[in-house]
Amino acid sequence: MAYNKLIRTLMIEIPSVPGSLGKVATAIGLSGGDIGEVETIKVGPAYTQRNITVQVENEEQLVKIIQSINTLEGFRVQAVSDEVLRAHEGGKVHMKSKMPIQSLADLSRVYTPGVADVCKVIEAEPEKAKIYTNIGNSVAIVTDGTAILGLGDIGPVAGMPVMEGKSALFDQLVGINGIPILLDTKNPDEIVETVKRIAPGFSGILLEDIGSPHCFEVEERLKAELDIPVMHDDQHGTAVVTLAAVISACKSAGVDLKEATVGQIGLGAAGLAICRMLMAYGAKSVLGADRSLEAKERLENYGGTPVDELEELMERCDIVIATTGVQGLIKKEWVQKGQIILALSNPKPEIESADALAAGAAYAADGRSVNNVLGFPGIFRGVLNAQSNKVTHPMLVAAAEAIASCTKAGDLVPQPLDRMVHERVAEAVEKAANATE
Amino acid sequence: MAYNKLIRTLMIEIPSVPGSLGKVATAIGLSGGDIGEVETIKVGPAYTQRNITVQVENEEQLVKIIQSINTLEGFRVQAVSDEVLRAHEGGKVHMKSKMPIQSLADLSRVYTPGVADVCKVIEAEPEKAKIYTNIGNSVAIVTDGTAILGLGDIGPVAGMPVMEGKSALFDQLVGINGIPILLDTKNPDEIVETVKRIAPGFSGILLEDIGSPHCFEVEERLKAELDIPVMHDDQHGTAVVTLAAVISACKSAGVDLKEATVGQIGLGAAGLAICRMLMAYGAKSVLGADRSLEAKERLENYGGTPVDELEELMERCDIVIATTGVQGLIKKEWVQKGQIILALSNPKPEIESADALAAGAAYAADGRSVNNVLGFPGIFRGVLNAQSNKVTHPMLVAAAEAIASCTKAGDLVPQPLDRMVHERVAEAVEKAANATE
Repeated sequence: MAYNKLIRTLMIEIPSVPGSLGKVATAIGLSGGDIGEVETIKVGPAYTQRNITVQVENEEQLVKIIQSINTLEGFRVQAVSDEVLRAHEGGKVHMKSKMPIQSLADLSRVYTPGVADVCKVIEAEPEKAKIYTNIGNSVAIVTDGTAILGLGDIGPVAGMPVMEGKSALFDQLVGINGIPILLDTKNPDEIVETVKRIAPGFSGILLEDIGSPHCFEVEERLKAELDIPVMHDDQHGTAVVTLAAVISACKSAGVDLKEATVGQIGLGAAGLAICRMLMAYGAKSVLGADRSLEAKERLENYGGTPVDELEELMERCDIVIATTGVQGLIKKEWVQKGQIILALSNPKPEIESADALAAGAAYAADGRSVNNVLGFPGIFRGVLNAQSNKVTHPMLVAAAEAIASCTKAGDLVPQPLDRMVHERVAEAVEKAANATE
Repeated sequence: MAYNKLIRTLMIEIPSVPGSLGKVATAIGLSGGDIGEVETIKVGPAYTQRNITVQVENEEQLVKIIQSINTLEGFRVQAVSDEVLRAHEGGKVHMKSKMPIQSLADLSRVYTPGVADVCKVIEAEPEKAKIYTNIGNSVAIVTDGTAILGLGDIGPVAGMPVMEGKSALFDQLVGINGIPILLDTKNPDEIVETVKRIAPGFSGILLEDIGSPHCFEVEERLKAELDIPVMHDDQHGTAVVTLAAVISACKSAGVDLKEATVGQIGLGAAGLAICRMLMAYGAKSVLGADRSLEAKERLENYGGTPVDELEELMERCDIVIATTGVQGLIKKEWVQKGQIILALSNPKPEIESADALAAGAAYAADGRSVNNVLGFPGIFRGVLNAQSNKVTHPMLVAAAEAIASCTKAGDLVPQPLDRMVHERVAEAVEKAANATE
């Protein structure tokens, strides 16, 4: 196929009768589409589902092809996928059997009657469940769908691709069994109650894309009421990776983070957690700005200093971190000479790094490389290895320091798929967990 | 290693210092144990976990070895596994990524930023979740732990090996993503509420090892209140396989099941479901006996005929099925000439087949081969393929007939790991689902 055309895969329901594929291929050809791969997904008694990849000149031609297929009686285009959508077809994770069950002897060992012995061992000594089941290696990835990425409250089902992505990364990077749980409620009481009721199957809870402010209550209550570790990734996972980036930036600029004045712009779930993480690390002076009075009160309760005007914050701080989602919020004229500025909002930062540097900043970076994939896998691996029943700030600070220690000079963070980083994070967290117990 | 000795695998926590393995090997050797495999499970900063397989003469020697290891400072035997327990170490299932995530390009497709496009597609057209996530192929395997196998109310965690076994069989036999959910409640209202709240992530609910009588209420309410298929395996899965066995037995004995009088001894969850399945199949006269008045009333409500005395049931019925768990309940002198008797309780039947045949039965079998593995995988595969929102009796009867059609002449049921059987069941269920919609 030639370059510079659109390539799309059509998922088509085709009647299960001879000649059907010919009809659909002819329809595509008559509309000027080039057919590439033809893949059979499912053969049913009445209908067969196939993926047919076509190359077309433009969107108009694609629409024409789809219409011509849909006018054929019994044929229906069910989905049109580009390369990204293709990667998600059928979902990204699957619960696999760890061993083949091929003989009746296998069946009697892994299922009845042999399994009864295993149940009895666990009944007698419940802690043996960590040995004879996967519970000790399992984390629930829980969302109510209220704050999916930057997309907002799009519901848990539309958020499932993110949860499956987290699950896939858990498996690939640290071998954790991550189970997406989509909640049909946004009520904090019901979220807490439901997670508690399904908790026996898990050794950790990763709260994911739960909106602010109810995320605070949900996390605090689950931490208090469950005896397994609970972490809201959008707060503490993000804060760990941000702290790692700040440590690296300070190293590059020759600034002592603990003695510096740090300013956080934006006190949502992530921003507030970043302030708490900085304080846990030992930063003595942490300022924060937000339009919400409630957010500023929360910061004050955690020991930070709220500031009313952005300009004042920019004036007083050696290090500025911004997580507001507002492009261009930081004006060039506010930048102080020698300042470190991390404008982390994606895809557009609060100030372009080049502009900040031109205005006198000693170090400036945006958030493109600050990916929370660097945090949650190793954090949970370490917590599960230590069989800890909680995630604490010392453990999270240890994770951030481990990430920073893997960062090459001049870089903000390491490559997120480097397994060595995740191993280091896991080791650091396990060590910190053992030290506090 | 020589034959006829005990082989056990010791999971041992060993200090992570050189010489430790030598110490433990010496301790085992001095106590007379032969060491086989040595496997490293986990290397931690302080402790290393290893599996060491030993061969010993007898249990006393094994105890001596364990004691001698435990007296070493810093060493601890965490578990002793035989062949069955070994098969369950680390659990039997794991959530795997379907594709490798090796490059930043992979990461940007399956995770951020690419995943946002997939979320938006599903937000706009929710039914697309069946294409771009694994929800359409996912079944929750839900238990409250109140009736695990024949072991009773041993709790959901001790029941996990059974749930993982079901999940492994779902994967291996029909490619379904089966997710164990362990409930920390036995209250029917809370079970129903919790399953409803986590339902968005699934396209089917398999209720498993939930005790009687609350299993009836839980299933009925979930069927009414959810728009995805719900099935209690201990009721209907068992009943499907039993009906298949009865159909085969009737074929062997030359009896017309629909015109025969059928008697069910034991009206618990399974027994009552068997009666309902027989009636759904078309059996005109179904009698049932149980000590519980409530159970007999339930049978009457479903259209069956309760009988007070076992002897009367034995006298009136052409076909007798027993699922009481009571060994030897059926006396030889009650057996009628030409009767079909399926005494299905495991591991000991209500009457031995040889005794029933000697007493005049035309056909007799016990429950050793009647394994519900024959039912649930194909049933759910068919239901999911049809995208049906319910499991109905016509679909279940079609499943039973498909199983019976795969049974060799003279056998009661087919080989449970034969994939062809599961495909046939799935096709039959899908066809029945499409016919009723």
